[in-house]
Amino acid sequence: MGVDLGGTKILTAVADRQGNVLSKVKVPTGAELGRQHVIDEVVRSVEVALNEAGLSVDKVAAVGVGAPGPLDPVTGLVFLAPNLGWRKVPLGEILGGRLSLPVFVDNDANLAALGECVYGSGQGAENLVYITVSTGVGGGLILGGQIYHGFSGGAGEIGHLTLAEDGPLCNCGNYGCLEALASGTAIANRAAALVAAGRGLGILAEAGGDKHRVSARAVAAAAAKGDTEAVLIMRDAGRYLGMAVAGILNLLNPSVVVFGGGVAQSGAILWEAMLEATRRCALGPAWQGVSIVRAALGEEAGVRGALALAVSRQTEQA
Amino acid sequence: MGVDLGGTKILTAVADRQGNVLSKVKVPTGAELGRQHVIDEVVRSVEVALNEAGLSVDKVAAVGVGAPGPLDPVTGLVFLAPNLGWRKVPLGEILGGRLSLPVFVDNDANLAALGECVYGSGQGAENLVYITVSTGVGGGLILGGQIYHGFSGGAGEIGHLTLAEDGPLCNCGNYGCLEALASGTAIANRAAALVAAGRGLGILAEAGGDKHRVSARAVAAAAAKGDTEAVLIMRDAGRYLGMAVAGILNLLNPSVVVFGGGVAQSGAILWEAMLEATRRCALGPAWQGVSIVRAALGEEAGVRGALALAVSRQTEQA
Repeated sequence: MGVDLGGTKILTAVADRQGNVLSKVKVPTGAELGRQHVIDEVVRSVEVALNEAGLSVDKVAAVGVGAPGPLDPVTGLVFLAPNLGWRKVPLGEILGGRLSLPVFVDNDANLAALGECVYGSGQGAENLVYITVSTGVGGGLILGGQIYHGFSGGAGEIGHLTLAEDGPLCNCGNYGCLEALASGTAIANRAAALVAAGRGLGILAEAGGDKHRVSARAVAAAAAKGDTEAVLIMRDAGRYLGMAVAGILNLLNPSVVVFGGGVAQSGAILWEAMLEATRRCALGPAWQGVSIVRAALGEEAGVRGALALAVSRQTEQA
Repeated sequence: MGVDLGGTKILTAVADRQGNVLSKVKVPTGAELGRQHVIDEVVRSVEVALNEAGLSVDKVAAVGVGAPGPLDPVTGLVFLAPNLGWRKVPLGEILGGRLSLPVFVDNDANLAALGECVYGSGQGAENLVYITVSTGVGGGLILGGQIYHGFSGGAGEIGHLTLAEDGPLCNCGNYGCLEALASGTAIANRAAALVAAGRGLGILAEAGGDKHRVSARAVAAAAAKGDTEAVLIMRDAGRYLGMAVAGILNLLNPSVVVFGGGVAQSGAILWEAMLEATRRCALGPAWQGVSIVRAALGEEAGVRGALALAVSRQTEQA
């Protein structure tokens, strides 16, 4: 079984050992109702999904769980998950006890990477880098066919590669991080500043004329219609994404880079600018060997990765 | 046995399975005398080293060989080694035939990384990044206790991380690569430009007043004496090195970063600027967990890595 525990929803799935999904359940997380409620909802969604698949709990080999934020994949301790309001929650232990099953926990971005690698657009890749661009920029690394965690579980922080020393302030306190230059929030902030200065009229129109609704989506829509200011913003974001991808290619030489998240799906202007900058900044051999593709699994990447985790960890232990 | 085949010298060593070096031999490469000569010199140095250790060839389990430039570590094919004048040389096959021994070939920077990881300043690290800063900037990655090659053997090209879009032109054709900002060549070029403009007198003095002898070493010497222009050049190089290290920490979260090469040993000014920029640009957890240290093995890093390769690959096959 796989569970993707997100800030707004819980996705749970049952699959056979070949990864064929037998049932799926989606429920709201209800993080505002507290930790006990969230745990109860996970347990209940597991029961419902099993019921829908017509299986009893003793048929389940293992449960993979994706959770947001930094965590210890060995013990399943979630260090910090701001969008759940959690700090130091022993999620693996709690769920293991409640479900009486082997539970393996990993970071949601890592599991999305694994999901795309095993079931999605990077099938069969030994070395894959997953980059998700939405309100923030995150990532996960599959190296040698396995999730790469690094020394203390902090690997894959692609959003905090510094790309412009004199760039905008990032949430992390540094300046010019990829996240501060190319996330949905960064795109929206830049457009909002234009609008506040009385410019960006094409973007404002896409936001229904309401300056409080200026979003990355509005910028992408205006860019798609050829609005010059919007095109420039999308191209800049794409160029910074490409610089980061090139750095990753030069360092890790993966065979596949997968882009997930809403911003990465926002159209050809950003995508082409990303590819152009990647080609320019990457060394020839690293560029020639790589496929750069959009994610195939959408919102299911995490839960499919959780399934893949359950299968692989269970196989290891068997 | 281990062989480090460099552009100017061949270092060969015999060790027992615990890595205790029993004999060492150093001979000039003589690359200008052609490929046959170089191969002959490698074979001869192996014989001399065995002789010095008082061992016959049938006591040798395997030979690890480090070679410059991109190569295929599986077949031992050297794609391109400009400082040997080689293109597509099947080094592993040739040496295997000549020595009648299992021969394992890898890139010199990868083997220096492995050497420092197994016998040097990163002993016992599971995840280690080795950065060498001399005329160029190169690197090697040890991930999960093994050399990480990437998809097509191109991993670890740390020198070509883009750090300043509008920076100086790099040998690779891109602008603002780490190598173009912080290598010995980059430091010397910046100083030479100052001198050509009639400035940089403190640096020129360290070059014996000869503008053709302005080098990174001269800049480091002037900086150590407090020369303001030289200090600025060394600080800038250190800052760019730190930005690159921070990116590596955020992406790979290694436990150890090892700096080798002459420039990395060039004094406190560059080193402190590197550490300061790393701390500033790295995320807290990645920074807190890491040791950033100077290489311990000097010119022996490569041959020690070649020994470690022979031991580990032989053990795998046994």
